[in-house]
Amino acid sequence: MSDMRRAAQEGSPAGTSVEREAATRPPGDPPPRLTIGVDVGGTKTAAGVVDEHGAIIRDARRETPATSPSEIIAAIGDLVEELRGDHEVEAIGVGAAGFVDAKRSTVLFAPNLAWREEPLRAEIEKLTGLSTVVENDANAAAWAEFQFGAAHDVDDMILLTVGTGLGGGLVLAGELYRGAFGVGGEVGHLRAVPNGHLCGCGNKGCWEQYASGSALVREAREFARSSPPQASCLLELAGGRADRIEGPMVTKAAADGDGPSRELLEDLGRWLGEGIATLAAVLDPAVVVVGGGVSEAGDLLLDPARKAFARQLTARGHRPVLEIRRAMLGNEAGIIGAADLARRR
Amino acid sequence: MSDMRRAAQEGSPAGTSVEREAATRPPGDPPPRLTIGVDVGGTKTAAGVVDEHGAIIRDARRETPATSPSEIIAAIGDLVEELRGDHEVEAIGVGAAGFVDAKRSTVLFAPNLAWREEPLRAEIEKLTGLSTVVENDANAAAWAEFQFGAAHDVDDMILLTVGTGLGGGLVLAGELYRGAFGVGGEVGHLRAVPNGHLCGCGNKGCWEQYASGSALVREAREFARSSPPQASCLLELAGGRADRIEGPMVTKAAADGDGPSRELLEDLGRWLGEGIATLAAVLDPAVVVVGGGVSEAGDLLLDPARKAFARQLTARGHRPVLEIRRAMLGNEAGIIGAADLARRR
Repeated sequence: MSDMRRAAQEGSPAGTSVEREAATRPPGDPPPRLTIGVDVGGTKTAAGVVDEHGAIIRDARRETPATSPSEIIAAIGDLVEELRGDHEVEAIGVGAAGFVDAKRSTVLFAPNLAWREEPLRAEIEKLTGLSTVVENDANAAAWAEFQFGAAHDVDDMILLTVGTGLGGGLVLAGELYRGAFGVGGEVGHLRAVPNGHLCGCGNKGCWEQYASGSALVREAREFARSSPPQASCLLELAGGRADRIEGPMVTKAAADGDGPSRELLEDLGRWLGEGIATLAAVLDPAVVVVGGGVSEAGDLLLDPARKAFARQLTARGHRPVLEIRRAMLGNEAGIIGAADLARRR
Repeated sequence: MSDMRRAAQEGSPAGTSVEREAATRPPGDPPPRLTIGVDVGGTKTAAGVVDEHGAIIRDARRETPATSPSEIIAAIGDLVEELRGDHEVEAIGVGAAGFVDAKRSTVLFAPNLAWREEPLRAEIEKLTGLSTVVENDANAAAWAEFQFGAAHDVDDMILLTVGTGLGGGLVLAGELYRGAFGVGGEVGHLRAVPNGHLCGCGNKGCWEQYASGSALVREAREFARSSPPQASCLLELAGGRADRIEGPMVTKAAADGDGPSRELLEDLGRWLGEGIATLAAVLDPAVVVVGGGVSEAGDLLLDPARKAFARQLTARGHRPVLEIRRAMLGNEAGIIGAADLARRR
């Protein structure tokens, strides 16, 4: 385990407050080594100045001009300029929702951004003059949870981000594992069901179609349409319209004790846990961290996942067993991880 | 890439003949660093003296006394004594079909051997006085194919052994990846079909139930029972009895042009290729090597696997693509890999 990780463990869980970090740093210490992490999403781009303990000491955000490759780069440039005004930064890490090549420089393909074979590293370096690393956003988030978050105490972990889709990142033997071509960790596209639901990737039955916010919404709406009386709680939250039910409504109704909403989260949790059993058969990690918007349901999601995992794990009873934990760093994991990867380049 | 691997690539593919190695070594060179590799299977135990180029220079075998933990160890001791008579060996690597702990010393569980929490390393070291490493047999074979065989030119590979069951081993970023607890690489137990065929591991729908020699035999017998006229070729090979059809008969009939037998291998190949697409989504290796008895069907199995893989790969067209190759080292991979891991300990 690195000294940095040890320090993170000995201190309190990683936070993001300027004050705390500033208050605990004794006067006279050398200034922290700062880097900028950028998280480019389909709708917004967030960036932050991050110190070597994984704390964000300043942040900023913009809408993502998703349809124009050059405008996305200009927006990243603006964010960097804004952030480096008051801080000396050494490097930039950019996390993007897409396939990044093995050299961590080119975005091969991004489903929700206009990038195709985009030489992002070179463009950002030219624009800012700072050394840049490009990483898949879920990989960056996995690195953050490994380094400063929910998996800081192990060497082998998988992050699952249960949001609109199901993303993932692998840290194996203490290193971010990216695959031979840079596009590993796309766990949401392991096939859970032959001839199952059609997926945006062109296949049928991808895990993402069963264990994601989109799956939750699909099932909740279908339920509300077919059984309005039983779905009264959900329908009330959605103004009476099944097609307006959204994931957070299910979580809220479940937290308030609505039985059918709890069952919807249980079904999702079961798919999640069963897929984790497949990942355990192949990779045998020590910890699986569950993040993303849907993870805000907490144990209403994770307890069913743990139960299904325990039932589905191969050779159970004859092997040590991984832990399923909730992510700690929330939305900021992508920024923190990208910044830390830039620091280590 | 290691010097050893470079040497293996520059020379001819690894062979196992005493004469070739002895003949090409110039006189006066220091004697090769030799280790013993042992492959403990459910029915027989094979061992060999292996040099640093992965060549077996002497070998021996015994029946495995599978029901007695102490007798298996005694048999390994006998083999080692027999082999070290004429060769100075430095260490022993033992590959066994079972779960081996993270320290590579204890067999946690072996489905077909009487070992439960067996401290194999300590026992063998006590018996022989030689430093010993214990490894899962498929992991050892994967290391051999990576180091000296079909994947000698890449850094990220997965071995699949399609035999009675479906085993596997992972080499990631140039290292054997064993998981946090030592029991990773059990790819045969990723779930291919929810509520599918019952598996010996206690679950339903494991990939092994669809892509293995046992699956081939099950399907071939079922076909012969339900459609005897169409299965005439197979039934002839099996003396007219569906329940005597075995995997090699299917391969032979397919090689001879029997249509239904080719279709049986195609079905198996399709399951194989679709599962490889799942592994590619998660791990993105450069090469998947297919070994084990069923791989003797060669392209009759691998071409359908390649086709199914190409159809099922997520985001195809937007990413570099792995190669599916046939294993090169055959039955000896386990011995060669275990011996090489012992050398590197």
